[in-house]
Amino acid sequence: MTSDPFFHPVSGFDLPRFAGVPTFMRLPHVAPDHPRFSDVDVGLVGVPWDSGTTNRPGPRHGPRQLRDASTMIRAQHPVSGMRPFEQVNCADLGDVGPNPADIQDSMTRITDFYTTLHAAGMRPLTAGGDHLTSLPVLRALAKDSALGMVHFDSHTDLFNSYFGGTMFTHGTPFRRAVEEGLLDPKRIVQIGIRGTMYDSEDRDFAAATGIRIIPIEEFFARGIPDVMIEAREIVGSAPTYVSYDIDFVDPTFAPGTGTPEVGGPNSFQALQVCRELYGLNIVGADMVEVSPPFDESGGTAFLGASIMFELLCAMLAR
Amino acid sequence: MTSDPFFHPVSGFDLPRFAGVPTFMRLPHVAPDHPRFSDVDVGLVGVPWDSGTTNRPGPRHGPRQLRDASTMIRAQHPVSGMRPFEQVNCADLGDVGPNPADIQDSMTRITDFYTTLHAAGMRPLTAGGDHLTSLPVLRALAKDSALGMVHFDSHTDLFNSYFGGTMFTHGTPFRRAVEEGLLDPKRIVQIGIRGTMYDSEDRDFAAATGIRIIPIEEFFARGIPDVMIEAREIVGSAPTYVSYDIDFVDPTFAPGTGTPEVGGPNSFQALQVCRELYGLNIVGADMVEVSPPFDESGGTAFLGASIMFELLCAMLAR
Amino acid sequence: MTSDPFFHPVSGFDLPRFAGVPTFMRLPHVAPDHPRFSDVDVGLVGVPWDSGTTNRPGPRHGPRQLRDASTMIRAQHPVSGMRPFEQVNCADLGDVGPNPADIQDSMTRITDFYTTLHAAGMRPLTAGGDHLTSLPVLRALAKDSALGMVHFDSHTDLFNSYFGGTMFTHGTPFRRAVEEGLLDPKRIVQIGIRGTMYDSEDRDFAAATGIRIIPIEEFFARGIPDVMIEAREIVGSAPTYVSYDIDFVDPTFAPGTGTPEVGGPNSFQALQVCRELYGLNIVGADMVEVSPPFDESGGTAFLGASIMFELLCAMLAR
Amino acid sequence: MTSDPFFHPVSGFDLPRFAGVPTFMRLPHVAPDHPRFSDVDVGLVGVPWDSGTTNRPGPRHGPRQLRDASTMIRAQHPVSGMRPFEQVNCADLGDVGPNPADIQDSMTRITDFYTTLHAAGMRPLTAGGDHLTSLPVLRALAKDSALGMVHFDSHTDLFNSYFGGTMFTHGTPFRRAVEEGLLDPKRIVQIGIRGTMYDSEDRDFAAATGIRIIPIEEFFARGIPDVMIEAREIVGSAPTYVSYDIDFVDPTFAPGTGTPEVGGPNSFQALQVCRELYGLNIVGADMVEVSPPFDESGGTAFLGASIMFELLCAMLAR
Amino acid sequence: MTSDPFFHPVSGFDLPRFAGVPTFMRLPHVAPDHPRFSDVDVGLVGVPWDSGTTNRPGPRHGPRQLRDASTMIRAQHPVSGMRPFEQVNCADLGDVGPNPADIQDSMTRITDFYTTLHAAGMRPLTAGGDHLTSLPVLRALAKDSALGMVHFDSHTDLFNSYFGGTMFTHGTPFRRAVEEGLLDPKRIVQIGIRGTMYDSEDRDFAAATGIRIIPIEEFFARGIPDVMIEAREIVGSAPTYVSYDIDFVDPTFAPGTGTPEVGGPNSFQALQVCRELYGLNIVGADMVEVSPPFDESGGTAFLGASIMFELLCAMLAR
Amino acid sequence: MTSDPFFHPVSGFDLPRFAGVPTFMRLPHVAPDHPRFSDVDVGLVGVPWDSGTTNRPGPRHGPRQLRDASTMIRAQHPVSGMRPFEQVNCADLGDVGPNPADIQDSMTRITDFYTTLHAAGMRPLTAGGDHLTSLPVLRALAKDSALGMVHFDSHTDLFNSYFGGTMFTHGTPFRRAVEEGLLDPKRIVQIGIRGTMYDSEDRDFAAATGIRIIPIEEFFARGIPDVMIEAREIVGSAPTYVSYDIDFVDPTFAPGTGTPEVGGPNSFQALQVCRELYGLNIVGADMVEVSPPFDESGGTAFLGASIMFELLCAMLAR
Repeated sequence: MTSDPFFHPVSGFDLPRFAGVPTFMRLPHVAPDHPRFSDVDVGLVGVPWDSGTTNRPGPRHGPRQLRDASTMIRAQHPVSGMRPFEQVNCADLGDVGPNPADIQDSMTRITDFYTTLHAAGMRPLTAGGDHLTSLPVLRALAKDSALGMVHFDSHTDLFNSYFGGTMFTHGTPFRRAVEEGLLDPKRIVQIGIRGTMYDSEDRDFAAATGIRIIPIEEFFARGIPDVMIEAREIVGSAPTYVSYDIDFVDPTFAPGTGTPEVGGPNSFQALQVCRELYGLNIVGADMVEVSPPFDESGGTAFLGASIMFELLCAMLAR
Repeated sequence: MTSDPFFHPVSGFDLPRFAGVPTFMRLPHVAPDHPRFSDVDVGLVGVPWDSGTTNRPGPRHGPRQLRDASTMIRAQHPVSGMRPFEQVNCADLGDVGPNPADIQDSMTRITDFYTTLHAAGMRPLTAGGDHLTSLPVLRALAKDSALGMVHFDSHTDLFNSYFGGTMFTHGTPFRRAVEEGLLDPKRIVQIGIRGTMYDSEDRDFAAATGIRIIPIEEFFARGIPDVMIEAREIVGSAPTYVSYDIDFVDPTFAPGTGTPEVGGPNSFQALQVCRELYGLNIVGADMVEVSPPFDESGGTAFLGASIMFELLCAMLAR
Repeated sequence: MTSDPFFHPVSGFDLPRFAGVPTFMRLPHVAPDHPRFSDVDVGLVGVPWDSGTTNRPGPRHGPRQLRDASTMIRAQHPVSGMRPFEQVNCADLGDVGPNPADIQDSMTRITDFYTTLHAAGMRPLTAGGDHLTSLPVLRALAKDSALGMVHFDSHTDLFNSYFGGTMFTHGTPFRRAVEEGLLDPKRIVQIGIRGTMYDSEDRDFAAATGIRIIPIEEFFARGIPDVMIEAREIVGSAPTYVSYDIDFVDPTFAPGTGTPEVGGPNSFQALQVCRELYGLNIVGADMVEVSPPFDESGGTAFLGASIMFELLCAMLAR
Repeated sequence: MTSDPFFHPVSGFDLPRFAGVPTFMRLPHVAPDHPRFSDVDVGLVGVPWDSGTTNRPGPRHGPRQLRDASTMIRAQHPVSGMRPFEQVNCADLGDVGPNPADIQDSMTRITDFYTTLHAAGMRPLTAGGDHLTSLPVLRALAKDSALGMVHFDSHTDLFNSYFGGTMFTHGTPFRRAVEEGLLDPKRIVQIGIRGTMYDSEDRDFAAATGIRIIPIEEFFARGIPDVMIEAREIVGSAPTYVSYDIDFVDPTFAPGTGTPEVGGPNSFQALQVCRELYGLNIVGADMVEVSPPFDESGGTAFLGASIMFELLCAMLAR
Repeated sequence: MTSDPFFHPVSGFDLPRFAGVPTFMRLPHVAPDHPRFSDVDVGLVGVPWDSGTTNRPGPRHGPRQLRDASTMIRAQHPVSGMRPFEQVNCADLGDVGPNPADIQDSMTRITDFYTTLHAAGMRPLTAGGDHLTSLPVLRALAKDSALGMVHFDSHTDLFNSYFGGTMFTHGTPFRRAVEEGLLDPKRIVQIGIRGTMYDSEDRDFAAATGIRIIPIEEFFARGIPDVMIEAREIVGSAPTYVSYDIDFVDPTFAPGTGTPEVGGPNSFQALQVCRELYGLNIVGADMVEVSPPFDESGGTAFLGASIMFELLCAMLAR
Repeated sequence: MTSDPFFHPVSGFDLPRFAGVPTFMRLPHVAPDHPRFSDVDVGLVGVPWDSGTTNRPGPRHGPRQLRDASTMIRAQHPVSGMRPFEQVNCADLGDVGPNPADIQDSMTRITDFYTTLHAAGMRPLTAGGDHLTSLPVLRALAKDSALGMVHFDSHTDLFNSYFGGTMFTHGTPFRRAVEEGLLDPKRIVQIGIRGTMYDSEDRDFAAATGIRIIPIEEFFARGIPDVMIEAREIVGSAPTYVSYDIDFVDPTFAPGTGTPEVGGPNSFQALQVCRELYGLNIVGADMVEVSPPFDESGGTAFLGASIMFELLCAMLAR
């Protein structure tokens, strides 16, 4: 793999960070009909969609605000020294066009888009969107065999249904993904789970299928290095998806989300967990549930963009 | 009609306006299972639902914020001197429980709720919800015969479909209502229409069916009294519905909405149009598209609540 | 009267408007113990106090924010061409120190402060504070004989009591002032009154004592010049106080206040009414009910400061 | 103790969290005149009052915003597994109606309300209000014998007077309570004290009477488990009150308060301290100083509501 | 002139308005090195620059927020029925890269960029930037002969210098432009001027050179049609520039700006004045002083984008 | 050194914190022409200037907001018990008047002001302003010999130039200061450095000259006491400057800044590092990059003011 200047982001030394049409990390905008599309190795994709949201809506505005905030991201990782944009060809592939008034139609559109990327050998880094986004993405990426998953979140998203039988919401994606064979439950680890509970239905499902839940109290008690050793062991070296719900982070650090739970990690810890993913076989990753209407200062989006950069480095740090 | 103290709102002279569990206009909360339910004449109902929203979401939070703001409303109209809460029994009937992840299920729930009210001889004053809310409400109220409608809005909401065939969005309710025979197009007047246009499809439908559109330029040029004489003539004395989209008002006065259009009426004019409805045969009314996530100061909700009080008086001023 | 450079405000051409310790209109800070105190003709005073507030608190923060915003005010009136700071000696006299947990103590402190000013022949321009502020000020200014009053507001503030007998709130100051002989009710005009009403108790008191109320509907229908001719006739050439409640203005233009009423004048009209006060015998004026916690953009304070400049010019335009 | 379905909160699986008239934790609203009033075991009460506030006002709006935020609370504790609403009958008893312009009248009203609850054998969980609220509550609860108190705060609230002799402010309640024999100073522990100081008057009073102050530096140095062992030893098994000032928490996590002090606990620690109260003999608890006008994102109220749920569990965890 | 689909904006019926990389009005992004650059007729350009700002900074963020808001603009004008994107080839040309720490360097960069456009026969519609932006743009457009100008603003921007001799600020551009022969003062009309004044230096310059100033009082008294007849006569049929400072509009409608003046036009009037420009020979136009840090709701940017659409139509309506 | 009552701040027990013209920590305002100027020992100075800002502007508004927030600071340090205002004469010296449109002119003005202070034997505590502010201050303070520096920041500010050769920005002050011999690089320690990097140019310069950089990962791993022992050893007992960029603190705790980097210290740690400076020979200190337009809640300014009090104590704790 070599570096192609076309795929380099614009530097803040040349053009001030507030200038220019905002793309993810100031990368070139390479839509599927662009002549360089087939040269992309890692595609940053927006999924502006929140029809699965049962509580406060807003993640449909996530990709645009993440793009804006990501223009503050520079080219080099401060700890690992990685320069991801020189390692592989990265590009902003634009947004998948959802249908905000039709859940099934939207899921089909998303799966189709990611199927194209996957077929082209590209790995996606997604900016959601609510957490239901992960399901149609996984339908494309795990078409052939079930994936493992490292899942950062305050919720398990393993419920069966809402409101008397509604199967597709942002509280059910991974129940569906396990049922559909997209994820191998024994290779799923969910980290940071907390908050008041309806009941234990989701935990019972996890226990029955072998999903490992690490609640926040255990997370803090053991410390990040120890927890992440276990996480890496659970997913092993086989293909793995990383799903990062911004509500994993404490809502004071990330208020711009729909279903916050107090008592979570701070922003340093939010980055640290990503740095412990180096070496995994990551086939795709997402940053979901960033909800700009509840992010008055824009700080959530900036943290989300910073995490996306960490995820990108983790995807390349094999 | 006599006054029953049970149905009187709490006065700000007795309990400060910021105190107490917030119900619409500090009226008693009388859910359908309450013993006094059958005594209600005008029911204030919340429909916290925005699944038809194609743009910026949020009206699902409207009823709660309208309740909060409405605790600032006192008992007497400053111009007509009407004291509506002494004229008929008014109550807060609570919210219709929607299914935020299933449009059809939600529409059924709404129509069922309003069918019950309608059967009980009650007239509803609704706090939406996005504008698709009006459709399931009309299905209950216009079950027997088509209604006329005075419609305040910046958009016609007469489009056929969105996103390649989606028929139920907040841009299509009145197209559907006309097609379903719920509204008599010749007795519909739409006031305040403005903003950049996709094309003329909605205007063509209006022209073909006889719906009268009064754009904002005509509204300002003729003045409210003249425009409202025409509006009253169009709907006549037959049963009429009043639908008031908060985006009728200029977005500076009502920023808390999803699809604003600049250049609209101010807040005095927003009240004035309601005072010109006195004498009509109003079978129900709604205030829709109040979107708290975009209403940082709460001013939109307060204006919405003030308009609801005006609509209530108009419903009783025969 | 001649101009003394000591009393000139700092120009934005010399020191940028955002720089410097903020005093009212960038005037010198001349506390009562300052050697130039006795040379002041018009004293700008802050009364950071809101203990009379029955609804949303905050005007205690008004003077500081008005000072901050007033650093945007320049030296010359755009229409009359007046340069008030060259006409008489103006100064920021600082704040009266209130006791936020004791209403009577605070009223005594305020009356004492203004008695000192009045005795020194100074005319005060006050930045409140809630509307109860006007009462202790009037106790100092009208010690000898009852004053007339031009009162801009959406409320009459003529109620007898709240909460079962509480006589001193921001809804009662002018009832008290009339009872105490501080104001001559036949020389009071209240302009802009609107909003839903508890009942007609205040209007009955006005009718019984001869206070003239001009509701907002009449205000808009007749136009400002005509209304203000009547207002000037009512107060005549005898000593007159001007009390300006920021909630006179529509809450979209002035959201930072505790008891807003929609449907009021815009900001141009808010200035215009002051320009129609020229020639009156104004012994003092106040700008009250600016509540910074509800003024997120600071626009209310800037409007309030702009009105204070208009009031200052009106005080000098004999 | 058995569970009565009447007293169960509405589940978010049935009615979305944003729907419905907001009561504390979606419990039934059982005012004192409600037929089930006498069946309540733990009453959640709002005291919308801030007349004791010497600095930035706003806690009068606390109860309403806490109700709104508390609709996000579910039925089960994530760590202890407790389901408090199934353990005892909990209800929202509504607000005590204060008199915002009369401190003594308000204190009488509050003490009367709590005397009724106490007499009925109910334990109160209060949503303030500023910290002066605790005094009239204690007058009802400690009528018979002095209580112990675990007090989380950044201030001691042990000052003698303000502004030259004012004895009742939110900086003096516990000085008064000790003087009135409502609290046993030797059974008081104050945790989290910090911030710049006027002088040492309050610390001297504490030292003289035996009140134990644990400043934030000691709190962080020793760690929560160790500190809380000492706290439990201080209050012992005798009746104890828990008073939780939201400004105990760092103002970044809880900006919505009037007198913040930087350098406090984070939101995880804010919950943790409550979990260390299990086993105490808690006769009542309060959450005070939540000030919505300074809580733009609503995060403070959500944290406050989350802490109220923790306090509720602690009250039941004997 | 024919329409080329490449230059059509993306429709909200196909892709929701919140989706996609945001370009001005959802037009294609055609940077100078793009193969279709030479086919552009009207270029929308961002100038993210505010180094000339003497008061509150922020317009450097204007272009990005205007792009975001402009995704709400549709294809057809509601009154004239014009469909500008089908009339000529419009494109987003991206931003001119300024040097935020060097005024002269930035002016050179801007003039160079616009010289290229001008040489290519393109007409620019600029999104500033503070008002100093207009000067380097005019240096490119008026290289050959002086232009006329219709200038909407609350300030004349005709001052000679600030801070003891600084010649290039946002308060001096048109003084410089007249001195440099870029504008013909007899063909300049400034509309909406208002606000407190330092002195009359700017008015004296206008009077001496023949610039026509229409203050806001005259604007309101005569009405828009009459004022604009005069404006059109002043500039005549010769090449004319239109400069629109968002602070022309009342700050309640457009709070997001650095030097607001209360008492201005509302948003309907803000559009109306543009519709009175039809038929002029407009060689370029700008929308300046939109300052996102002071535009919390985003309403200023949306109004600014709406005005840009009006200006675009006016540029094409010959 | 004795205490002079003239230099004591106003107590919140006498005048509520929200009252009065806001000066730094409620100290007397002693401008250079004030008769007591020569008696000042430590001068608090505002430098409202941000012309060196390459990203989001705003620090020009810092001094005013820091003054406002600092009225919450009381007289005694909670841990050391120091009462700085009784130790030496402290005063608010007002602001240096910058020229917002001319960087070199502004730097000259700043250096002149500080040269006067320095000549008078006064030590300055500065409220910036962006980080370029430190350079002209150092030119005054280090005129005679190079200083050491403890520098808290997330950036090194050691770059050579921006935008193709611009040498004076807020990213270059300490490169210039070393080159100009104002700072001894071997006595510089930079603490808290983090965030994505352009490249390693700044680190290479540090390595080449002997500047010690302690990145945030090392800071957290070693703990504050250990890090600060090293910091004190680096600067030793010779004259030292302390420069505190508010973006050292995590942006959730200090959102009001222009170039945030996530993953920093919390507010307790932000204070703690200052308490570890006791005993150093501090000749001046600054708090820079507080940007009110991005500090919606005012929390950043309050933290900044709290840190200024800590720095003041550190300056006196020899």
